[in-house]
Amino acid sequence: MTIRVGVVGTGMIGADHVTRLTTQVVGAAVTAVFDVATERAQQVAAATANASARPSWEALVTADDVDAVLIASPGPLHPDQAIACIAAGKPVLCEKPLAATSSEALRVLAAEVAAGRRYVQLGFMRRYDAGYLDVKAAMADGTIGEPLLAHAIHRNATVPDFFRGEMSLTDSLVHEFDIFRWLFDAEVAAVTVLPVKTSPLAAEGMRDPQIAILEMAGGEVITVESFVNCQYGYDVRCEIVGSLGTVSLDNPRTTVVIAAGRRSERVPADWQARFASAYTRELQGWIDGLAARIVGGPSTWDGYAATAIAEAAVTSYARAERVDVRLVDKPPLYTEGGPIPDRAVSVIQR
Amino acid sequence: MTIRVGVVGTGMIGADHVTRLTTQVVGAAVTAVFDVATERAQQVAAATANASARPSWEALVTADDVDAVLIASPGPLHPDQAIACIAAGKPVLCEKPLAATSSEALRVLAAEVAAGRRYVQLGFMRRYDAGYLDVKAAMADGTIGEPLLAHAIHRNATVPDFFRGEMSLTDSLVHEFDIFRWLFDAEVAAVTVLPVKTSPLAAEGMRDPQIAILEMAGGEVITVESFVNCQYGYDVRCEIVGSLGTVSLDNPRTTVVIAAGRRSERVPADWQARFASAYTRELQGWIDGLAARIVGGPSTWDGYAATAIAEAAVTSYARAERVDVRLVDKPPLYTEGGPIPDRAVSVIQR
Amino acid sequence: MTIRVGVVGTGMIGADHVTRLTTQVVGAAVTAVFDVATERAQQVAAATANASARPSWEALVTADDVDAVLIASPGPLHPDQAIACIAAGKPVLCEKPLAATSSEALRVLAAEVAAGRRYVQLGFMRRYDAGYLDVKAAMADGTIGEPLLAHAIHRNATVPDFFRGEMSLTDSLVHEFDIFRWLFDAEVAAVTVLPVKTSPLAAEGMRDPQIAILEMAGGEVITVESFVNCQYGYDVRCEIVGSLGTVSLDNPRTTVVIAAGRRSERVPADWQARFASAYTRELQGWIDGLAARIVGGPSTWDGYAATAIAEAAVTSYARAERVDVRLVDKPPLYTEGGPIPDRAVSVIQR
Amino acid sequence: MTIRVGVVGTGMIGADHVTRLTTQVVGAAVTAVFDVATERAQQVAAATANASARPSWEALVTADDVDAVLIASPGPLHPDQAIACIAAGKPVLCEKPLAATSSEALRVLAAEVAAGRRYVQLGFMRRYDAGYLDVKAAMADGTIGEPLLAHAIHRNATVPDFFRGEMSLTDSLVHEFDIFRWLFDAEVAAVTVLPVKTSPLAAEGMRDPQIAILEMAGGEVITVESFVNCQYGYDVRCEIVGSLGTVSLDNPRTTVVIAAGRRSERVPADWQARFASAYTRELQGWIDGLAARIVGGPSTWDGYAATAIAEAAVTSYARAERVDVRLVDKPPLYTEGGPIPDRAVSVIQR
Repeated sequence: MTIRVGVVGTGMIGADHVTRLTTQVVGAAVTAVFDVATERAQQVAAATANASARPSWEALVTADDVDAVLIASPGPLHPDQAIACIAAGKPVLCEKPLAATSSEALRVLAAEVAAGRRYVQLGFMRRYDAGYLDVKAAMADGTIGEPLLAHAIHRNATVPDFFRGEMSLTDSLVHEFDIFRWLFDAEVAAVTVLPVKTSPLAAEGMRDPQIAILEMAGGEVITVESFVNCQYGYDVRCEIVGSLGTVSLDNPRTTVVIAAGRRSERVPADWQARFASAYTRELQGWIDGLAARIVGGPSTWDGYAATAIAEAAVTSYARAERVDVRLVDKPPLYTEGGPIPDRAVSVIQR
Repeated sequence: MTIRVGVVGTGMIGADHVTRLTTQVVGAAVTAVFDVATERAQQVAAATANASARPSWEALVTADDVDAVLIASPGPLHPDQAIACIAAGKPVLCEKPLAATSSEALRVLAAEVAAGRRYVQLGFMRRYDAGYLDVKAAMADGTIGEPLLAHAIHRNATVPDFFRGEMSLTDSLVHEFDIFRWLFDAEVAAVTVLPVKTSPLAAEGMRDPQIAILEMAGGEVITVESFVNCQYGYDVRCEIVGSLGTVSLDNPRTTVVIAAGRRSERVPADWQARFASAYTRELQGWIDGLAARIVGGPSTWDGYAATAIAEAAVTSYARAERVDVRLVDKPPLYTEGGPIPDRAVSVIQR
Repeated sequence: MTIRVGVVGTGMIGADHVTRLTTQVVGAAVTAVFDVATERAQQVAAATANASARPSWEALVTADDVDAVLIASPGPLHPDQAIACIAAGKPVLCEKPLAATSSEALRVLAAEVAAGRRYVQLGFMRRYDAGYLDVKAAMADGTIGEPLLAHAIHRNATVPDFFRGEMSLTDSLVHEFDIFRWLFDAEVAAVTVLPVKTSPLAAEGMRDPQIAILEMAGGEVITVESFVNCQYGYDVRCEIVGSLGTVSLDNPRTTVVIAAGRRSERVPADWQARFASAYTRELQGWIDGLAARIVGGPSTWDGYAATAIAEAAVTSYARAERVDVRLVDKPPLYTEGGPIPDRAVSVIQR
Repeated sequence: MTIRVGVVGTGMIGADHVTRLTTQVVGAAVTAVFDVATERAQQVAAATANASARPSWEALVTADDVDAVLIASPGPLHPDQAIACIAAGKPVLCEKPLAATSSEALRVLAAEVAAGRRYVQLGFMRRYDAGYLDVKAAMADGTIGEPLLAHAIHRNATVPDFFRGEMSLTDSLVHEFDIFRWLFDAEVAAVTVLPVKTSPLAAEGMRDPQIAILEMAGGEVITVESFVNCQYGYDVRCEIVGSLGTVSLDNPRTTVVIAAGRRSERVPADWQARFASAYTRELQGWIDGLAARIVGGPSTWDGYAATAIAEAAVTSYARAERVDVRLVDKPPLYTEGGPIPDRAVSVIQR
């Protein structure tokens, strides 16, 4: 059985997903694409066997030859599009963030809860990275004792011109917010954003780097450095500290060069290079699930919680104070399998 | 277009390939399997949608619903099976070794040369490993200056009971023979196998570890350690030394554990874990090539050369002396693109 | 010329210093020792050629055969003893902390300022560690651009029974307070101590681990983890993040073991193992300076500042809030050579 | 008690030793120096308190104010000078090599045996390196099971103009010959030198790099790469492979820089940087031994054996064949404590 996927948004991420679904994911076919940049959508469709550009995202979502939808449009559009998918009974992989605000995220949550089953998987691809899975295993199997705290860094070589201060919290650190919820299997209770001496290379008016302190519901504390113009490369690492030891995520590496007085290893250039395998595994897992008529992975709740943390972080940034993260009660739809289940699945009825 | 593959041999490697072709490779379908262990073949077929077990490998090779053949049978059977594929005009991915002896390998070479185009790709999957590709890039782009020598180790935790002394040369080191031909883009001119103090844990009558010295046609020398019961894990590494620097292949790693006084990283358990991605890329590349009607990758010549080196190594082992590697003249079919081309392709006519 | 040293306090650290001065430091001789544990002092004296135990520390300080004093007594005694050395015109190497409180530290400062020249070097031996010196060089030579922030960890396997919560700030983190003042060549403006989920292995009533946030006068921010019963070893590391790159201090290592599925390196067992060379260099530098009639290295001001930061940290710990570090005006005696000079020297008059 | 040392040869190594003995070694004083370059000797003497240049090495050896002699003259002079020290009853630290030929080395051996006690320690400083000591400990304590083979590399950035082909064997690899005798506690039975493709940067007429194969008396085999103009730095490493695991010597490192897309660590620039601590420990150990009236460390036998191996290596180089290493019977003076004892000591009679 081939899952026929419609892709909404054919910018860089969307186009990459089309390529992955077409050339690297077994059991999927991209049949429909849409982008407000019509020409771009048509180019992508032309390069993809059996795919065609559609006149609107609404038409794509409801098309008969679309079994499932991948949303890669700008973040503020995600809620309406995800809700339309739910209404159409179509499973959806929604790129992060779920929404620009937590109230918008709650609209999707309400729609899915009303529908009574999961349709939405959030695009938190890190949960599919071999390194993070290894870290989670070491946290679970007693290797490091009881996890107590963590340190994380999140550095980008540079960011696009449109990137502004809060976006490092809402678009970049949102990955950290999700991954630590997942690793610690707990919600974030409070967040504090600390300004740091600004890099002379930071864009006008931007605070970069910054440090965020996450306090987990269980008392664990995580320091997260955000530096979106570190210049030297893409660098995502963390160390989880337990009562008996620690486990660290490092950059993947297999080769070493010795030359000119130094022994060196390459740092990933960007997130595409670093997380290419994770994206493929994420999509393959999504498609395999759909083939088995189930929806799993990061849920709408996870998308909502990450958005709420980002929102609190933005408030902390503005007010220069610690801000509690307040979440609505968690609907039963999302409570199976522990606080942060990514295996809570719903059967697709079709 | 889906390439319909028949798999000959459903032992461990063959069954793994069936799974990969079915769940990880886009554009392929396994339609036919064969194994002398009939029950095993039927189990594999039953677990694979649209696949069926065939009564003989000859029937599989000539079946109308088989576009291409993957040979994963015992090595001595490879020549007849590969020749049958050539006769049937079917592209074939043949697991290493191409043959048990160089004269047997030459039979396949002759058949393919007579057919006038390439049909056979050899299963030297290391050429698809990200680490080796990185090493080759550093050798080519001037990073280390002019390559002069190399050191390599090849260690297995343990080997099966049927593994005997020469098999460490013919079945295990054969990967080293191929990869250094490919990395240095040169033939091996001579090989010397040195016995080493035998491990107390070596099987009765087996010399383990051993050291092989490869002399390349261009004068480069490579030391290769072979240790097939090193106990601690699977460990394949090398360092290429150039006139300006070195590049080393290390084990892939992304996580570090600190506990009980030590900072440690995991060593791969076995070759399946170490080269899983390389196998998938190898198969995807093969299928993508076939979809474009071309055959590339390691050739019958590469399979013959590796077998000839292994044969010389066995002689060196027996006689305790340096042995020249003598190859027949290289047919023009295999000379495009440099001494060791893996991009020399032939158009499939069908 | 041999510098004759009197050592006050022959506990573990004091006895180690006697051994170092006797067997590893050129140009020094220990002639006098004192400890309230008289028997212990006599044992140490008996094991040291030409040394004798003295009846009181006052007698030791004023003895004719004592050119310089090393104070390794309990911290609260340091101020009186250092002031007595100043009064006697004897150079003194005072183990950290300079004092238990900043007001006590100011008493020493006042005495030294009144004397008009430096007599006191503080025992911040990390400044003599090859790794930290390398980090400082990379911060100074442009390798990492402009330093902006840092992350540090400070872990001990275990601590003695008498160790209580605040001691992790006053006795352990005090090293971090000094080293980051020195690395960034700036004072600490504020400190925040964050409680973390307590390890199940922490002593009764003790908060362990903790995270301290240091805000430097120039806006740089440093996160410091303190974990005094991490169980696995002694682990002091940091990463300094600049506008162009980072430099990290790691544990010294020269050997790697591969066994039982893991590649591992040893973590230092304790601070004696980790900083043995730094202690020797510190003492040799002190003695070499004295031979040249100069006093340099970490000053009384550095000892006062570190104590003031520790005091603010204890307040932050108690009140769970950010606390400013307020220092008195810096006397001219300590201002040569930049904010945190360790080369501001005074000539010894003798 | 201060050991008064006379230093013969004040070239680079000799002058470094004078500085070490004067500023880093406790219990020693350099009282006399000699060099055929008279002016150089006088400069060194002038920079050293209480030292004076002597008119001849013979005068230095027999001077009343010289308790022990350090020989750092050109290698061919070592035998006569060492024999003179033995005749004068003076302990001597003789830089490697003991002699230019094994027959010359045997002259020293005969003189020492005739004297009936050890006077000579050879300058194989690697035995005092923390890394090699760690490797030896792992070989002894069962960590890697039974040692079976080893791989070593020995690379220099460049060598002086006077360096010719055989000197890489006699002056550079001689350190490897000694260290593997010591690590494996066994003599070398045979050596084979393999020529390798010559670096385009090698000096005219010089074969560089080369590979030497050492066969130990117990059957262990060691591959040693020699590359004396590798350009990038000084790089001495090895991996010892045992029946259960391996232990590797790596370059010392404590800091990491991440910048411009790469994570890097510095490689030592030269052997002075790499083995500075080992030299100091060697000298301190020598002086401490003399203070206790004992001579230990690498012996005349070790110097003879290393010279004999180098001689065999030169023969192998010239004849392009494997050459047995033949040693005279080992005098009882050198047999205490195992095949390669470095603790076999003799009491100094004075």
